Amino acid sequence: MNTVELDKIFDQAKSWVLEAGETIRTKINDPLTINTKSNPNDLVTEMDKETELFFAKKIKDTYPDHLILSEEGFGDDIDSLNGTVWIIDPIDGTMNFVHQKRNFAISIGIYQDGVGEIGLIYNVIEDVLYSAIRNKGAYKNEEKLPLLSESVKIEEAILGLNHFWLCENRLVREQTMQQLVRKVRGTRTYGSAALEFAYVAEGIMDGYLTMRLSPWDIAAGVVIVNEVGGTTTDINGDELNMIKNNSVFTCNPRVQHIIIDDYLRKGRK
Amino acid sequence: MNTVELDKIFDQAKSWVLEAGETIRTKINDPLTINTKSNPNDLVTEMDKETELFFAKKIKDTYPDHLILSEEGFGDDIDSLNGTVWIIDPIDGTMNFVHQKRNFAISIGIYQDGVGEIGLIYNVIEDVLYSAIRNKGAYKNEEKLPLLSESVKIEEAILGLNHFWLCENRLVREQTMQQLVRKVRGTRTYGSAALEFAYVAEGIMDGYLTMRLSPWDIAAGVVIVNEVGGTTTDINGDELNMIKNNSVFTCNPRVQHIIIDDYLRKGRK
Repeated sequence: MNTVELDKIFDQAKSWVLEAGETIRTKINDPLTINTKSNPNDLVTEMDKETELFFAKKIKDTYPDHLILSEEGFGDDIDSLNGTVWIIDPIDGTMNFVHQKRNFAISIGIYQDGVGEIGLIYNVIEDVLYSAIRNKGAYKNEEKLPLLSESVKIEEAILGLNHFWLCENRLVREQTMQQLVRKVRGTRTYGSAALEFAYVAEGIMDGYLTMRLSPWDIAAGVVIVNEVGGTTTDINGDELNMIKNNSVFTCNPRVQHIIIDDYLRKGRK
Repeated sequence: MNTVELDKIFDQAKSWVLEAGETIRTKINDPLTINTKSNPNDLVTEMDKETELFFAKKIKDTYPDHLILSEEGFGDDIDSLNGTVWIIDPIDGTMNFVHQKRNFAISIGIYQDGVGEIGLIYNVIEDVLYSAIRNKGAYKNEEKLPLLSESVKIEEAILGLNHFWLCENRLVREQTMQQLVRKVRGTRTYGSAALEFAYVAEGIMDGYLTMRLSPWDIAAGVVIVNEVGGTTTDINGDELNMIKNNSVFTCNPRVQHIIIDDYLRKGRK
C-alpha cells in the first residue's frame, strides 16, 4: 500500500471514529440494554454492537476487499493477517462505559500483511484522539507526541496493571509482582487497555502489563506506542501474535528489560 | 455559624479554589522545582507550597479568627477542631501532578467545631469542581449529584484501592484482600484520594479504601460523600479522627458492612 492510499484510509477511518464517538456521546444517557456475557465482569452493551456494525458496514461498502477482525461478531472469520485487516474494538473498557460513562475508547488498528500501519484510539467522552501512521509519528489530537523519555529509571516508573497480578495467578508468582509494585514509584489501574496504551504513548505511564488480551484490545495501541519509541511484547519479551490472545507488556524501553528479567521471567510459573 | 455566613464562606472559598486552579493551569508547563521529601514517592513541588500559601494568606486576611490545618506548613499548629478550621491539601495527587500533569485536585474542607460544613474538590485540569454544604446536597460543577444507588451488590461494585493492599502489609492479611478483589466486579487505582472520594460521591466507584491518610486528604471528601448518602469510617468501621492520620473506607452504605465484616475485620492482623 502506498503513502497516498494509506493517508486516504487514515483520514477515512478517523472521520468514522469521530462520527461513531459523536453517536455514542449522544446516546450514552439512554437506558442501556446490558446483557452479560459468560460472567458479570464481561458486560456488553447494545452500543458496543451498534458501533461495531457501523464500522463493519462502512468498511465493507468502501473497501470490499479489506477484512475485519473484531470483538462482537460482525467481522470476518480469519486465521491470518494477509491483506488489509481492520482490527476493531468498538468500545474498549466496557465496564467503565457501563459504570462510569467515561474512561472508555474506540480502538482501531489497520494492518497490512501483518504490519501495523494505522492506529486510532478515541477517548470518546473527553473527545481526545490518539493516532499514528507507521513512521509518521503519533498524535494526541493535533499535537505530535514526543519520543518517550530516555532517562526513566525503574524506581521512578509509573506502571499500569490490574490487581489480579497481585493475586494467585497462572502466569507469575504474586510474591514477585509484589516486589515489583514496591520497586516502582507508583501503580495505576484505569480499566481500558486501549487508553492505557495511549497513556504509555503519552509518557504519563511508563508501562502497562496485562495477563490476556485479544488483538482488538491492543492493535491500535501497538502502532501508536511504536511511533514514540515504545515497545510491546508478551510478558516474556517475545513478539505478539496479532491473531491470538496474548499476555501483553507495552513500555518505555528503558524499563523493559529490568521488568521482564527481574520480575516477569524470574517469577514465571 | 448561621446559613448566611456559611453560604458566604462557601462562595469565597469556591472563588479562591477556582483562582488557584487557574494559576496552576497557567504554570503547570513551567519547569518544576521538584524536591523530594523522605522518599521518592513523596514528591512536593513548588506549586504545592505556593498554592497553600495563597490560601493561607487569603484566609488569614479575610477571616483572622479561622484556623488552618494543612500539609505544607503554612497552617496553624492545632490539636483540636474547635472553632472554624480550614483543612487544606493544595495539590492532592502530587505524583499524578508531576508525572501526568493531570488527575490531581485542590481539596478544602471547612469544619466548625469538628463538624464538616463545606467540602470542595477541584479537578484542576478538567475544570470540574465537586462541592457540598452540609445538608444542602453535593454538586459536580452546577449539576446536583443524585443519592447513591440503593441497589449495588458487592458482586457489582467497583472498588478503588492501591496495589499495596495486595502486598504484605501491617493492617490486613493480603490473602483476604485478594478474595475481596476477586469478589467485586472491578478495581481501580487513580492516585488521588480527593478525586477517589469525588468518584465515590459521583457513584462511578462504590467504595475507596486506603491505608493511611492525613486529614487534608479526606476532609473535603467526607463532606461531599455524606451529602449523597455515602459513609466514611476507618477500615474497622469506626469514626475518623479528623486531626490524626487514619485508615479510611468511604463507600456506598449498601456495600459497607459486607466489606468491613467479611474482609477488613476478618483479615485484620
